[in-house]
Amino acid sequence: MLNEIGARAKKASRVLATAGTDTKNKALVAIADALMARAEYIIEANKRDIKAARINGMSEAMVDRLALDIRRIEAMARGAFEVSQASDPIGKVLSGTTRPNGLKIEKVTVPLGVIAVIYESRPNVTADAAALCLKSGNAVILRGGKEAIYSNIAIAHTMREAVESVGLPADCIQLIENTSRESASQLMKLNEYVDVLIPRGGAGLIKACVENSTVPVIETGTGNCHVYVDKDANIDIARDIIVNAKTSRPSVCNACESLLFHRDVDERAVFALCKALDDKGVRIHSDQKVKKIIPSAVEATEEDWGTEYLGYEISAKFVENIDEAIEHITKYGTGHSECIVTDNYFAANKFTSEVDAAAVYVNASTRFTDGSEFGFGAEIGISTQKLHARGPLGLDNLTSEKYIVTGNGQIR
Amino acid sequence: MLNEIGARAKKASRVLATAGTDTKNKALVAIADALMARAEYIIEANKRDIKAARINGMSEAMVDRLALDIRRIEAMARGAFEVSQASDPIGKVLSGTTRPNGLKIEKVTVPLGVIAVIYESRPNVTADAAALCLKSGNAVILRGGKEAIYSNIAIAHTMREAVESVGLPADCIQLIENTSRESASQLMKLNEYVDVLIPRGGAGLIKACVENSTVPVIETGTGNCHVYVDKDANIDIARDIIVNAKTSRPSVCNACESLLFHRDVDERAVFALCKALDDKGVRIHSDQKVKKIIPSAVEATEEDWGTEYLGYEISAKFVENIDEAIEHITKYGTGHSECIVTDNYFAANKFTSEVDAAAVYVNASTRFTDGSEFGFGAEIGISTQKLHARGPLGLDNLTSEKYIVTGNGQIR
Repeated sequence: MLNEIGARAKKASRVLATAGTDTKNKALVAIADALMARAEYIIEANKRDIKAARINGMSEAMVDRLALDIRRIEAMARGAFEVSQASDPIGKVLSGTTRPNGLKIEKVTVPLGVIAVIYESRPNVTADAAALCLKSGNAVILRGGKEAIYSNIAIAHTMREAVESVGLPADCIQLIENTSRESASQLMKLNEYVDVLIPRGGAGLIKACVENSTVPVIETGTGNCHVYVDKDANIDIARDIIVNAKTSRPSVCNACESLLFHRDVDERAVFALCKALDDKGVRIHSDQKVKKIIPSAVEATEEDWGTEYLGYEISAKFVENIDEAIEHITKYGTGHSECIVTDNYFAANKFTSEVDAAAVYVNASTRFTDGSEFGFGAEIGISTQKLHARGPLGLDNLTSEKYIVTGNGQIR
Repeated sequence: MLNEIGARAKKASRVLATAGTDTKNKALVAIADALMARAEYIIEANKRDIKAARINGMSEAMVDRLALDIRRIEAMARGAFEVSQASDPIGKVLSGTTRPNGLKIEKVTVPLGVIAVIYESRPNVTADAAALCLKSGNAVILRGGKEAIYSNIAIAHTMREAVESVGLPADCIQLIENTSRESASQLMKLNEYVDVLIPRGGAGLIKACVENSTVPVIETGTGNCHVYVDKDANIDIARDIIVNAKTSRPSVCNACESLLFHRDVDERAVFALCKALDDKGVRIHSDQKVKKIIPSAVEATEEDWGTEYLGYEISAKFVENIDEAIEHITKYGTGHSECIVTDNYFAANKFTSEVDAAAVYVNASTRFTDGSEFGFGAEIGISTQKLHARGPLGLDNLTSEKYIVTGNGQIR
């Protein structure tokens, strides 16, 4: 079954690869319009998912992530419309040269081909991922979670009709309706048809894809992000950054999960920083030295240093110096977003040069690691791997390239 | 054991990542000097490999690929020296912006980290791959074939001493001396330490890496390359290109393996083209229509269309039109190098736009798909995958990137 979906995607991808920007934009506007026109149908489908979720005892926080109302459908439609307004990432000439023998060599951007996206409960990913793939000339195979299956079917169906209405193949967007573990496993091995697999979800999903996929994977999203408070830190700035990075949205991958204090940071300052988190209801897992300053902290275990809490918890410890901070980040970090708070020029340079992560910050919140905050527009995820693209994956990252070489009979 | 090698590589990679260009260049010059100074020692080691190869009944052609003499060692040394002269791919600012909130975001090139290279018999790969990885700030773990093990040990040992002599860790370059299948399999799963795996060798090796590696792989090198002779082709140009693309070096991945003739190409022209190959000793596997024109051809089987002969053989057939040619290339090609010979503007544009391959040629030999022919200097292989880099992998492709974000207390 998946072979058939794969073959259809490959076929559609070849049409889409050479579709003009105007056609692709028309399809995206048609998608935006259709999502609004069919909002009621989508919300009805979503109700079936919500009902099933409640029967299965899903927590209300999770139900909220799953739920669609007119406002959220508007957001999806606006997303598709905004992608239609973005510049086309395909057909850009990235570089070019004329060789001594007269050969002209140009490097141009082309679509990746077929992108598979495996994701978990949030149904808006269905629309967002499809819009980005379409604009970048890629056919997409969506494999969402079973919790959102009725919503995903309704959204995908709506988008497929819209795509077809402008003369593009409906199969530019396909949803795998079988949400069994096997369908995901099969998709990971569909090398004949799928060029890239992008998992979006928790650490377990990402790990399963990395370990089992023979299709090239772009690893996304696990973020054990640190804020290191240097001895020369401005404590007001540190407090604002720490509170923002931890509490503005604790469930996301660019949230801060761990604090490192230089040993010379004043005890009162450490108290003030921890207190500010405590006031927001953040539970601090710390080494003994920090615990002496803020007694409400609980003692950290070795496991805490590597934990992405994704909630109102944080780990904290003192380090001897910036080298130990970088060492700690290298050992426990996931290469997502890392921050130093400092007034010191050399410390800032050392940190940005030696810390190996998708985004390295000086005096700014890790929460900025995000496609639209970086000015890329919508993103399909945040890559934490070094191959292909690192950081927020915008339209420009959903491309490959080819060399076009033109001659007049040159031989070697 | 491999874990230890991995850990040492990771550690060395962190030193190398921030090493200055001067230091890296000094190491490369030291490598070049050491290879020359220790040529005799390397040749002695190579003799042991040659002796074992002959005992094991290796063909003389293969023995020739394995053999090192002073000329080949000079070529390795010159290669390392040339890499020292190339510009440093690390620390380039690829783009930068100041966001409305005052955040400055720069995208800079950084090393990939640890690169593993699995390769087959030719011992020069040991020196070439190590030099490219070193210059691009990556520690390398080399896993060569058992046929060249003594040569590889001697070369790696020589390079390690040279690297250490300029103050860099010897572990920037490591060779796995255990050439069992298990050592390759383990290397493919060494995600904790290895960032990228590059296989260099035959289709079997590449396939094993793609199927078994959990480390991200850059697929290289299988080339079922086509030359399509359009109805508007200049036949003299076609003949030069076909003969060059097939016979100038039949054993390499950018050699032509299949010919497609537009149905309107004159029979005498097809005869002339096939005869030119025949004169060079090329065996033609063709459809019946071509066979009628050149009776020495043997009838092609379905398998022939997908075969990379890597020798004095080629497949050939007629197609109805350019669409069928593109269809055929899409079905049987490996996305390496594809060529159209034509005088027609629209046919040239259609072919370059619709054929999906690393390099698409108009009126030039597929043999140009090569790092130095493209002006990149030495290459570590030719990527036929769409993720990360496609085409010849030069120094610039052995990099990743990171975002450096500097602020003055911005929060989101």
